[in-house]
Amino acid sequence: MQIITLITDYGTRDQYVGALKGVILSIAPSVRVVDITHDIEPHNVLHGAFVLWQIHPWYPRGTIHLVVVDPGVGSDRRIILGRYGGQYVIAPDNGLVTLIHREMPVETVYVVENRRYFLPHLSTTFHGRDIMAPVAAHLANGLDPRKCGRGTDRLEILPVAHRAEVDGGVVRGSVLYADRFGTLITNINEDQLPVSRVGPCTFDVLVNGANIGPVRSAFFDVAQGEPVALIGSSGMLEIAINRGSAVERFGPAAAVRIEVR
Amino acid sequence: MQIITLITDYGTRDQYVGALKGVILSIAPSVRVVDITHDIEPHNVLHGAFVLWQIHPWYPRGTIHLVVVDPGVGSDRRIILGRYGGQYVIAPDNGLVTLIHREMPVETVYVVENRRYFLPHLSTTFHGRDIMAPVAAHLANGLDPRKCGRGTDRLEILPVAHRAEVDGGVVRGSVLYADRFGTLITNINEDQLPVSRVGPCTFDVLVNGANIGPVRSAFFDVAQGEPVALIGSSGMLEIAINRGSAVERFGPAAAVRIEVR
Amino acid sequence: MQIITLITDYGTRDQYVGALKGVILSIAPSVRVVDITHDIEPHNVLHGAFVLWQIHPWYPRGTIHLVVVDPGVGSDRRIILGRYGGQYVIAPDNGLVTLIHREMPVETVYVVENRRYFLPHLSTTFHGRDIMAPVAAHLANGLDPRKCGRGTDRLEILPVAHRAEVDGGVVRGSVLYADRFGTLITNINEDQLPVSRVGPCTFDVLVNGANIGPVRSAFFDVAQGEPVALIGSSGMLEIAINRGSAVERFGPAAAVRIEVR
Repeated sequence: MQIITLITDYGTRDQYVGALKGVILSIAPSVRVVDITHDIEPHNVLHGAFVLWQIHPWYPRGTIHLVVVDPGVGSDRRIILGRYGGQYVIAPDNGLVTLIHREMPVETVYVVENRRYFLPHLSTTFHGRDIMAPVAAHLANGLDPRKCGRGTDRLEILPVAHRAEVDGGVVRGSVLYADRFGTLITNINEDQLPVSRVGPCTFDVLVNGANIGPVRSAFFDVAQGEPVALIGSSGMLEIAINRGSAVERFGPAAAVRIEVR
Repeated sequence: MQIITLITDYGTRDQYVGALKGVILSIAPSVRVVDITHDIEPHNVLHGAFVLWQIHPWYPRGTIHLVVVDPGVGSDRRIILGRYGGQYVIAPDNGLVTLIHREMPVETVYVVENRRYFLPHLSTTFHGRDIMAPVAAHLANGLDPRKCGRGTDRLEILPVAHRAEVDGGVVRGSVLYADRFGTLITNINEDQLPVSRVGPCTFDVLVNGANIGPVRSAFFDVAQGEPVALIGSSGMLEIAINRGSAVERFGPAAAVRIEVR
Repeated sequence: MQIITLITDYGTRDQYVGALKGVILSIAPSVRVVDITHDIEPHNVLHGAFVLWQIHPWYPRGTIHLVVVDPGVGSDRRIILGRYGGQYVIAPDNGLVTLIHREMPVETVYVVENRRYFLPHLSTTFHGRDIMAPVAAHLANGLDPRKCGRGTDRLEILPVAHRAEVDGGVVRGSVLYADRFGTLITNINEDQLPVSRVGPCTFDVLVNGANIGPVRSAFFDVAQGEPVALIGSSGMLEIAINRGSAVERFGPAAAVRIEVR
């Protein structure tokens, strides 16, 4: 069964998600629609980019990811259809592919512009429903992606520090994302740490200059309420508080500095 | 695949949605259950009516919409099964069909009263699970709607100003709904505007008496933080703030007056 | 179609639910995944136990319930696969089965330990994705549960007062759960009330010592804003406020004392 996943900032109390699903199911009645999230912070493109990047490794080839965080809807921003690892992403061309794009080569990119696959009447504010959903549904039905529009090799990519800087024995990083539990997910990849996790640990993690000790194996390796550095579920260094919130402790994610040395 | 959509005020943290889905899937194992929203404001019938009205155009004939916002559960309020445009609505008879009903003729209405299609044991507080879900599932399985109960031509309709008043060259409207983005969706339909949008725009939009200029094409046609009037995705005049919240700016939706002249 | 239900505290704005679903669908492409809730209060095992207990009666035999509230992830807490009434529960062994276990005999319990059915690389913080989701998917594909690991008859059960105490003609109970509407669901079962509901009602309900009258049939049997005792949709005594919130009126659920006499 063909899969279309949904990542949007539409929220869950309005008509938007329901309309989007109706359009998809009217065109592709047997597709499987998977809610990833509709709670992307409104207009926060980086939040959408992060979730897309994190979930795509777990989906099979051929999956179509519909990612709609679209503050520029109605402008001349383009809509793009990109293929990464055999999976498709349909999104406004505003940086939503930033993190997936930095991790792996894009295989093909088309501009979504062939109105034949849009709804007949286009609103100026809801291209998720009028353009992206029907194109995703036609793709799920087997539409050749080349029919969506001309190819392109220009893509909007956000200036995010996707990977920390390594300077001699010191890694200087920042926070990509704070999750529901208040855990800070940094841009320091496991493979950037100065010493292998499996060997003896000879380095410390500093959060805004304060030493919180070495990388540990689990939350409860520190006392309740204490900060802990871990390799998280995506292979990135994470800062958490055992049964507490690191984002409350260390302040807005954007301003947190992480150092490993 | 037969579709049952769910519009409820059950929220997403309790057992109610899960129980409802279990009842449906136990009776109709191959039906497709589509979450529209479970975040209707508790007991806010107009909110449910709005979402039903907005999403129904996007679903295929035969779709069954289960709409449960039911402050009168356990009273002698009836449950009704209505057909609009070949789609079915099962809901308490408390006004949930108000907006869809004003837009298009109801084709048939039955009172849901044949206990043969209810769960054997009825609670007094959860008719969504005990009555509406099993009836929806039996309909999805092919049950003849006439077997649900007797026909009726009386339906509870709320006294909502569904369409603005036009008085000479002046349109006086109100707000039907404020969405997650803080956008105010008014009861002024595109076809009520004094001059066609495509011709030269010679009228202004006033919100609580303050002139916010003509109808524009997109949010970003005004500076960030400025109010903007648009034709929204449902063909109604909407008031938004570019990257801000109109409901925060202009106060509770119910009190906002819109004038176009 | 085989059903896997999801009850988690992952929330709906992060990558966790999407990753979990992707793992399931990659292994078992035709399974039906049913969102029960992802809004269990973070780390609140009793909340998860309550929802599992409440929803299981409505699902068909063979359903697999994936319940992930896992504050001990990464510790030596076990993961268990239990069968109750022909349905399967996969969960950390931390008390999530407490309420279902007290209601009905467990048929079989296995420790989930056969790494052959896990993802190849295990994180220390996301066993929902790496262990529980793939095992659930393999079960849905027909895996013999005995292949998951050795049998056990030890299970973590929380010390919750699942049923009220009856002392002569007096029932003394407490609150198991407060729902989205602010209704307090007590541990007093319908069958524990001193007199049958259908006969003349000769007893009163006291909340924190204050008499709120007899058990009624519906919310609106009292004036708006007044407290009301009802037999709720799960057969337990509930305390509500007609169009209001009992949890706001009577304080944190854990401290509320209920007496029926």
